[in-house]
Amino acid sequence: MATAGAGAAAATLRAWGAHVAGLETFESPDGKIALLKLTTSDGIEGWGQFGNKDVDLTVEIFHRRVAPAAMGALVRDPAALVERIVGFELNYKQLGVQLSKALAGLDAAVWDACGKFAQCTVCELLCARPLSAFPVYASSISRKIAPQDLADEMARLKQTHGVRAFKVKAGKRMQGLLARGQDPKSKQEDQWPGRTAAVLRAVREAVGPECELMVDANGAYPSPATDSTDGAFVDGVCKMLREYGVSFFEEPFFWCDYDAYRHLRDREGRAGLPVAGGEQEFRMDVWRAGLPLDIYQPDFGYAGGPSSILQIAQFARRDGRRFVPHSPQGDLHVVYALHVASALSDPQLDRIELACVDDGLCQVFIDTNGTVTSMPQITGTPLRLKHGHLDLEPQCHGWGVEIDPVWLRADGVKSRVFDAKEATSKRSNL
Amino acid sequence: MATAGAGAAAATLRAWGAHVAGLETFESPDGKIALLKLTTSDGIEGWGQFGNKDVDLTVEIFHRRVAPAAMGALVRDPAALVERIVGFELNYKQLGVQLSKALAGLDAAVWDACGKFAQCTVCELLCARPLSAFPVYASSISRKIAPQDLADEMARLKQTHGVRAFKVKAGKRMQGLLARGQDPKSKQEDQWPGRTAAVLRAVREAVGPECELMVDANGAYPSPATDSTDGAFVDGVCKMLREYGVSFFEEPFFWCDYDAYRHLRDREGRAGLPVAGGEQEFRMDVWRAGLPLDIYQPDFGYAGGPSSILQIAQFARRDGRRFVPHSPQGDLHVVYALHVASALSDPQLDRIELACVDDGLCQVFIDTNGTVTSMPQITGTPLRLKHGHLDLEPQCHGWGVEIDPVWLRADGVKSRVFDAKEATSKRSNL
Repeated sequence: MATAGAGAAAATLRAWGAHVAGLETFESPDGKIALLKLTTSDGIEGWGQFGNKDVDLTVEIFHRRVAPAAMGALVRDPAALVERIVGFELNYKQLGVQLSKALAGLDAAVWDACGKFAQCTVCELLCARPLSAFPVYASSISRKIAPQDLADEMARLKQTHGVRAFKVKAGKRMQGLLARGQDPKSKQEDQWPGRTAAVLRAVREAVGPECELMVDANGAYPSPATDSTDGAFVDGVCKMLREYGVSFFEEPFFWCDYDAYRHLRDREGRAGLPVAGGEQEFRMDVWRAGLPLDIYQPDFGYAGGPSSILQIAQFARRDGRRFVPHSPQGDLHVVYALHVASALSDPQLDRIELACVDDGLCQVFIDTNGTVTSMPQITGTPLRLKHGHLDLEPQCHGWGVEIDPVWLRADGVKSRVFDAKEATSKRSNL
Repeated sequence: MATAGAGAAAATLRAWGAHVAGLETFESPDGKIALLKLTTSDGIEGWGQFGNKDVDLTVEIFHRRVAPAAMGALVRDPAALVERIVGFELNYKQLGVQLSKALAGLDAAVWDACGKFAQCTVCELLCARPLSAFPVYASSISRKIAPQDLADEMARLKQTHGVRAFKVKAGKRMQGLLARGQDPKSKQEDQWPGRTAAVLRAVREAVGPECELMVDANGAYPSPATDSTDGAFVDGVCKMLREYGVSFFEEPFFWCDYDAYRHLRDREGRAGLPVAGGEQEFRMDVWRAGLPLDIYQPDFGYAGGPSSILQIAQFARRDGRRFVPHSPQGDLHVVYALHVASALSDPQLDRIELACVDDGLCQVFIDTNGTVTSMPQITGTPLRLKHGHLDLEPQCHGWGVEIDPVWLRADGVKSRVFDAKEATSKRSNL
C-alpha cells in the first residue's frame, strides 16, 4: 500500500522518469499551516501540506535538510525518497516530529504529482477504484464549551447532517504528567470538577443510545502502573465511560508512556474498554514494533505523510487493530484521509475524524447544506457532509483539490523558493 | 541517580527554595555550539550546553517552548522540571531531538546551579565523592585521513599520553539505508574499496595487541534482517572485526532500525561481537523499554541532558549492559561525562570517548603536555590527558568550569535574553 498499486495508472507511473526540479513553500501568517509546491522536471505541479503547528520551524527544516536531498530525486517512488532524505548528510541525527512534519509536506506533494502524471486521483493510484464518500465522526476539540451547548450542537449534526458518531474531551490536558505524584482525586483531575461526567451525560442524552460516543483525554490521567491509587483512579474513569457506552478511550495517558497503556489494557482485559492513541507517534520504528493500543491514530503530518499512514495501516492490519488516522482540521489532511479510507479495502478504517463542533476554537465550519470550510480556507469548497458521510468532488487529479490562488497571495502568507546555497550555509554538520 | 544523592550537599539542596528567574542563550557563529546562562531568584548563575548541530533551531525552540515553562520553576528538582516543560501547553506534540537538545541545555544549567548553591561539584552532589581522573578512549571521527597517518597518530597518543583504547570509522556513513536493495558487495560498501580493512590493519599494528580497538560504522551496513545476502555480508564484516580483535561494533545499521540490531545479536549469540549504539536515541520511553544493544551510548545533548544520561545509566545497569555515553567533542559534554563517570560506583562505565585524532575534521587538540583544547574554546583549559586518563581540575563549583568571557563576547556570538511576550507570539497551539 505504501507505493502505487497494480492498476493501469500505477503501471503508467512506474515508467515516469521525471525528477524533483523545484520546491516552494507557503506559510500562513498565524504559523498554523504551511504548503509545499513541488515542480517536476517535466512541468507537473504537486501540492502537499506540512504537519501543523509552529510551521515556521518546519519550513526552515524543510529548506535546510529535506529540500537539498529531494532536489533531483525521482518523483515516482515516495518510499525511496524518504530514505534518501533521512540518509542525507547528518539528517539521521535530526529525527523528531519537526523533521517528520517537513517530510509529510514533501510526501503529500509527491503523491499529488504522481496522480497528476498518471491522470487519476491518488485513491485510484492506490486501489484502481474511484474516491467514495466516507462516514465521519464529529469531534469537539474544546474543553471550554458548556456541556449543554456541546450536546445541542452534536444533536444538530445528527439531525441535519446524519452524523452517527461523536467524540468529546475528558479530563484536563496532560494532567497525568503535570500532576504526577499528586492525589489524582484532587480537583486537578478535571477541567472543572465534574465536567467529564456532565459532558458525557448531556451528549449521550442528546444523541441517543444508538450513536457511537468516544472520549479523548489528551493525557489527562496518571499512569495506572505508577499512580498513588494503584490504578483504582483510572479504573473509576473507565467504569464511568462504560456506563455512558463509550466505544473508545483516546490518549488517557501521556502519549508515549506506553507502559501505562499496556498496564491499562492488561487491567481491562480482552473485553475491556478499547484504548486509542498514536496521534503524536512520529517514529516508524516504534509503529513497526507495534503499539499497546486497540485503535491506531497516526496523524498525517506528524507521522511523515500519506506514505507513512499507508504503512501504519498495514501494521494495524498485521496487529489486528482498528485504524483511524488523525485529520480533524478540515484542511488537506482530511482530504488525504478520504483518499486513504477509500483505498483501504477492509473495514479496519470505519470512520474519519472531523472536528466540526463550532465552539470558537474549532477551525471547521459546516453550513446548512453540509458545505465544509476550514480556516484558513486554502482550497475551494469541494468537501460536503451529507448523511454522516464526507464527500469530495475531485476538482483535478492527484488529491483532487486545487489550491486557492487567493490564499496564496493573501496578506502575510510567506512564500519561499528553495535556494541550495542558502540551505548549505545553514547546516552545521559537525 | 537522576536526582542528587544522600550526602550533606544533597541535603542542603533539598532545602533550596529558589526558582528560575532569568535565561540567556549564546550561540557560536558557526551554528555548532550553544550555551545557556540560567540565573536563579537568589542570584546564582548556572551554565549549560545545548545539544550540538543546527543550534539556531535548538535555541529558537528553547526560547519558544522550553523557557516559558522553566521560568518560575523550582531549581532544585531537574526531573520535575522536565515534566513541567513537556506538559506545558502543546509541547507534548513537539517531541524530537530538537526539543531534547533544548532541554539538555536547561538540565545541565540547573545541575550547575545546584552544585553552586550546595558549594560542591555535581559529582559530589551525586555521590559525595570528589571528581576523579577517568580513562578515555581516543577516537577518530574522519573517514578521509590516510590509514597510516591515523595509525601513527594513535601510536603517538599511546606513547605520549598513555591512551590504551582506540576507535576507528568503518564503512560508509548511512550506506545501509541509502543503498538499501543494492548488492552490498558493490563498491558502495566502503568509503573506498578496502578502506576498513586497511585502517584496522594499520591501527592494530601501530597500537599493538594489548590495546582495545573499537569500530564505529555510522549505519554503514544493510540490515541482516532484510538484505539481499540474508545477512552473510554483515557476518563477513563481523568476522573481519573479530580477526582484528575489535571489542565493540558501533552503529552497524541505521540507528533506530532496532530489528536489524536484534537480528545481528541473535546471529552472533552470547559470545559474539558486542554491538554498541543509542547515540541518537532521544526518546526516554524507548530507553526505558530497553534496547537490543550490548553497550548503551546516549549523547548528553540528544538524550536531553545529564539527568537523562543518569537515568539511562540505571537502565543499563538494570539490563546488564555496558554504558559509555557519547561526548567526543572536548566541549562541556565531556566535562559532564567526567562527573557522571566519577559518580557511577560500578565498572559499567569504564572509559569515556574523546575524539582526539587531529585529522582536520576533529575539534579536539591535545598538546605535548596533555592539555586538551576544543574549538570553539568556551572555557579555559582545565582538561588534561595523562596516562590515558582525562582529568579536570575544578575551577569552581557545579560542573567545575568557568565559561570564558572572551568567547561570550567574541565576534558573531549571538546572545538572546528570554522574552516571554515574544515567545508567546511565536507559539502556534491549534
